[in-house]
Amino acid sequence: MGERILIVDDVATNRIVLKVKLRSACYEVLQASSGHEALRMARHAAPDLILLDVMMPDLDGLSVCARLKRDPATRDIPIILITSRLDHASKLEGLNSGADDYLTKPVDENQLLARVRSLLRETNGTAELRQQGASALDLALEATPAPNDTENTIALIAPRPETGLFWRAGLAGFRGLNIRIMTRSEALSDLSASQSVPDIFVIATDLSHRNEGLRLLSDLRSRPATRHAGMMMVLPANDAERAAIALDLGAGDIIYDPFDPAEMAVRLKTQLRRKRQADRLRAGLSAGMQMATTDPLTGLFNRRYAMFQLDRLLCDISGNLAVMVIDIDHFKSVNDRFGHAAGDAILTDLALRMKSFLPDGCVIARMGGEEFLVATPVRDGSAAYHLADTLREVISGQGFVIDTMESPLTITASIGLAVAHPQNNQTAPRLIEAADAALYASKADGRNRTSLAKPA
Amino acid sequence: MGERILIVDDVATNRIVLKVKLRSACYEVLQASSGHEALRMARHAAPDLILLDVMMPDLDGLSVCARLKRDPATRDIPIILITSRLDHASKLEGLNSGADDYLTKPVDENQLLARVRSLLRETNGTAELRQQGASALDLALEATPAPNDTENTIALIAPRPETGLFWRAGLAGFRGLNIRIMTRSEALSDLSASQSVPDIFVIATDLSHRNEGLRLLSDLRSRPATRHAGMMMVLPANDAERAAIALDLGAGDIIYDPFDPAEMAVRLKTQLRRKRQADRLRAGLSAGMQMATTDPLTGLFNRRYAMFQLDRLLCDISGNLAVMVIDIDHFKSVNDRFGHAAGDAILTDLALRMKSFLPDGCVIARMGGEEFLVATPVRDGSAAYHLADTLREVISGQGFVIDTMESPLTITASIGLAVAHPQNNQTAPRLIEAADAALYASKADGRNRTSLAKPA
Repeated sequence: MGERILIVDDVATNRIVLKVKLRSACYEVLQASSGHEALRMARHAAPDLILLDVMMPDLDGLSVCARLKRDPATRDIPIILITSRLDHASKLEGLNSGADDYLTKPVDENQLLARVRSLLRETNGTAELRQQGASALDLALEATPAPNDTENTIALIAPRPETGLFWRAGLAGFRGLNIRIMTRSEALSDLSASQSVPDIFVIATDLSHRNEGLRLLSDLRSRPATRHAGMMMVLPANDAERAAIALDLGAGDIIYDPFDPAEMAVRLKTQLRRKRQADRLRAGLSAGMQMATTDPLTGLFNRRYAMFQLDRLLCDISGNLAVMVIDIDHFKSVNDRFGHAAGDAILTDLALRMKSFLPDGCVIARMGGEEFLVATPVRDGSAAYHLADTLREVISGQGFVIDTMESPLTITASIGLAVAHPQNNQTAPRLIEAADAALYASKADGRNRTSLAKPA
Repeated sequence: MGERILIVDDVATNRIVLKVKLRSACYEVLQASSGHEALRMARHAAPDLILLDVMMPDLDGLSVCARLKRDPATRDIPIILITSRLDHASKLEGLNSGADDYLTKPVDENQLLARVRSLLRETNGTAELRQQGASALDLALEATPAPNDTENTIALIAPRPETGLFWRAGLAGFRGLNIRIMTRSEALSDLSASQSVPDIFVIATDLSHRNEGLRLLSDLRSRPATRHAGMMMVLPANDAERAAIALDLGAGDIIYDPFDPAEMAVRLKTQLRRKRQADRLRAGLSAGMQMATTDPLTGLFNRRYAMFQLDRLLCDISGNLAVMVIDIDHFKSVNDRFGHAAGDAILTDLALRMKSFLPDGCVIARMGGEEFLVATPVRDGSAAYHLADTLREVISGQGFVIDTMESPLTITASIGLAVAHPQNNQTAPRLIEAADAALYASKADGRNRTSLAKPA
């Protein structure tokens, strides 16, 4: 089954004309002959895109568009309005109600298909980010701050300074757009340093040379700072051929010059909304990946990542490797006497204390409950013992401050230490087992002490 | 700082010519006047791309290329060979040693810049995947099976059947390429269903109509099944203008017709290598995201995701919600007597048993150690109690088989149950606290029993 496109038109011949064009590009075509049927099919047949006639009896295209964009189940389906009228106001209303574009009958096949490709490329990209993220993405998105919608920077790149000024004057009346006029070189110089990469570039197709704007579009797409920016190409009137190329090159939208600033403004808002959504998904993906390696309470590495790192250290280092297993003494009684919140505060505080005491490059992980692991290259066994036992003193030497208690609570920890020598082929599980046995000896010996495992 | 491009040429005027072209596109330019200097700079100045002259005294470009591609520190830097000779053998040798393309002097500016954009777009895309993955990606990649390099499918889409057959005959002698001739419609019909999406499409620029191949390229890029496939465009000889467009449209490589099959084969191998790398990064990203929500031992949801799901259930459901906290009785003694491996086997087995007994839609999580959580909508308190107590019987009713033991080990669990009613505004932490208190009652009451928390 290919991508499904729903054609909505009350006139059968109009549907057939569009269907022929779409079938030639191997899309699966669904048809609805009224606004109400369109609403039903959009919900139940899950089309990937909708071509929506504006003029229909009963329920017109603009109302259908507005309803689809209000319904969470259908609002992400791209909509292209098809209109036979040159009625500018209703086109603007359509864009305002969330349509992604409009095309005027008779519909130019190349432009229609290029627009369809562009919209599908975008929704499929978003769908893929979601799919990669799977359930973790929801989790991560909750932890990712919602984007700040009030700071939208739009860069205008026009062939002549006066054109840029004219465009800017037209857009001045629309709220929420921070407009900058830029040259091609300014756009290409590194923007990441100045921390003000525009959200959207509005670029004239021809700058100093013919097609220079199209090349700039590809250029911005190839550079790290600007590859995810929105791109709106401004084309000479009726240049449908290059409009199709611009969309295929990755422009998010196109508009013909001279344009109505109100139409530009509403198109920019659609682009901004899409960019925010994609930015947020990417941020969620990064946050989710972070979660895979960390313990949520302390922010230290989790057990899984610690084992992975330990394996890697055993492969990579040529010198001695120390592994400490650290267990808080009588931690259960802390939880029982002072509550879980106090216990959690101690674990968090202990994590910070370990991080600031231990040298950079140490692997520090929470293995679960009140058990921690530290792995680090060391000169020899005696240096390892000194480091571990000083860590023990750092833990016990100063009380832990708890919100609900007047005086700090003294905590001690028992430590089991194992040192791997490069000559013997140690594995991570055996090393931890040895450190565990040493920890057991520390506990049996009265706690608050460091024991060194016997060499394997 | 923009993208850095290293120009390597022993003739200063040649370097200047290239530098002018690159500076006009706002790239930062580095220069090396010998092969040895190039090797040093590639390691220390970390250029994003290298333009490498082939004919140099001392150490020639082919040797430099081969060395850079062997060194893990430099092998991911794209290399374009620049040659003044029409010596086909050395071009092929360059491609074979890992160069991404060659250009012949005098270098066409448009084609040079389009190729630079295309290569930078690709390396930046890969770098971004790595960055999003952060440290978790390494972890996930270790768990992701290495791609099977022996099954490479190449689709040839030529203007006429006999051209396709001719191309295929040329490529027949090269190992590891599974070649299929396809039509445009076959490529566009849904390939995901047949599970044989080609790794690379080789497409003639002109098919039935001029530029139809270029549109097909954009079309394949917009569809989910083929968006990550490699694309190699075949252009009429000397059509540098459309070669630049093809690269900007997202072709991974181009070749001019008629082509040397050996050159096509080595270019296909480069494309395949890149595609495998990107596929693997994407798979690693998905696997890493999966890890963020799951407990590594049992594959159940982890504590973090369980809390998130519980919050969500409390917001979404209109009926009663049951929360059970399940704790294995005397689990420490199992570990002490039979070892951690036996303990882990029991936890894993218990997870499977819970999954197969509990109804679909239950949230089942391991909260840590031997403690599990189940959350599920229920009719009422009595249905919840019945479900929880039957689960308890399912756990204790049949022994757990352990590799090292002759007879199965009987395990019991204590369960604390809390039921949230829609009218009282329960929060996830308070609900778990109530279930914890009920669990404590079960333990105090002699274990292997289910206790219902008092309504809040």
